[in-house]
Amino acid sequence: MDSITKTNKIITILLRLVALAATIPSIVVMVISNESTQIFDFTFSAQYDNLPTFTYFVVAEAIAAGYSFIVIFLSLKSSFWRVIIILDVVVTLLLTSSVSATLAVALIGKNGNTYAGWDPICGQFSKFCDYVAGAVSCGFVATIIYVLIVLYDLHILSPFFNSKP
Amino acid sequence: MDSITKTNKIITILLRLVALAATIPSIVVMVISNESTQIFDFTFSAQYDNLPTFTYFVVAEAIAAGYSFIVIFLSLKSSFWRVIIILDVVVTLLLTSSVSATLAVALIGKNGNTYAGWDPICGQFSKFCDYVAGAVSCGFVATIIYVLIVLYDLHILSPFFNSKP
Repeated sequence: MDSITKTNKIITILLRLVALAATIPSIVVMVISNESTQIFDFTFSAQYDNLPTFTYFVVAEAIAAGYSFIVIFLSLKSSFWRVIIILDVVVTLLLTSSVSATLAVALIGKNGNTYAGWDPICGQFSKFCDYVAGAVSCGFVATIIYVLIVLYDLHILSPFFNSKP
Repeated sequence: MDSITKTNKIITILLRLVALAATIPSIVVMVISNESTQIFDFTFSAQYDNLPTFTYFVVAEAIAAGYSFIVIFLSLKSSFWRVIIILDVVVTLLLTSSVSATLAVALIGKNGNTYAGWDPICGQFSKFCDYVAGAVSCGFVATIIYVLIVLYDLHILSPFFNSKP
């Protein structure tokens, strides 16, 4: 247990704060992305929960945000380290999964797909698309930070990992 | 370096063989998923490379398959372990990303999305959709195996990780 130094703790806490600072705007921006547009006499509206993948994105980012917040306090107690390292891997996979899925669907929204007969929707809902792009960007930053956290976990986990071959 | 036993090596090699056995059919099934259908006098065809996400899936699975194959031989030399552990994390993220993105797009293909005006295509292309489902399932198995490999890496990486708190 002594192998986790104060410096290790400070670095992981800072990384988790950055992850928290990226996940919260990704949730907020996705949730407030709704837009209404009038075509002739009909009003069409776009909002994130019309697409199941975008709802998954919000849930995944919220789990990552909540986990980052809780683990900042938990990580002060070294005995939780083993569980935290496994949960770091799980949260990294969750973020990777949700950002990738959301980006794939967002790209269909932007470019459409002529083969499948899916028209792009960003012409009608440009604000919605801009907000989704912003949310995905923040989610991507959070994912990168969590990948760094996992690599840093590997670094502090083992003297073996850092020893000369 | 002595901390990696013969048993550790055999278990990781077996896991990598299972991952290889899952990624290869996922590539093959996705690549041969093409289907043509005639509607009135027009012939429509569906194939994986009509959708950029499905192409990304094939590339990601091919990288994972190639990596699994190469690393089975590399892992016999212990000095590569540190690089292999980092690459295991990268390949796990790549598999998670590609399977999630492909599943998100495949679900639009299956269910469509009325809000976005995207019609489902599985009515016209049922063979294509079945094959994509098969490929995603194999990709999902490969992802689970790689998550197990990363967790097993953590297990063998450090005596600290296994010590009592």
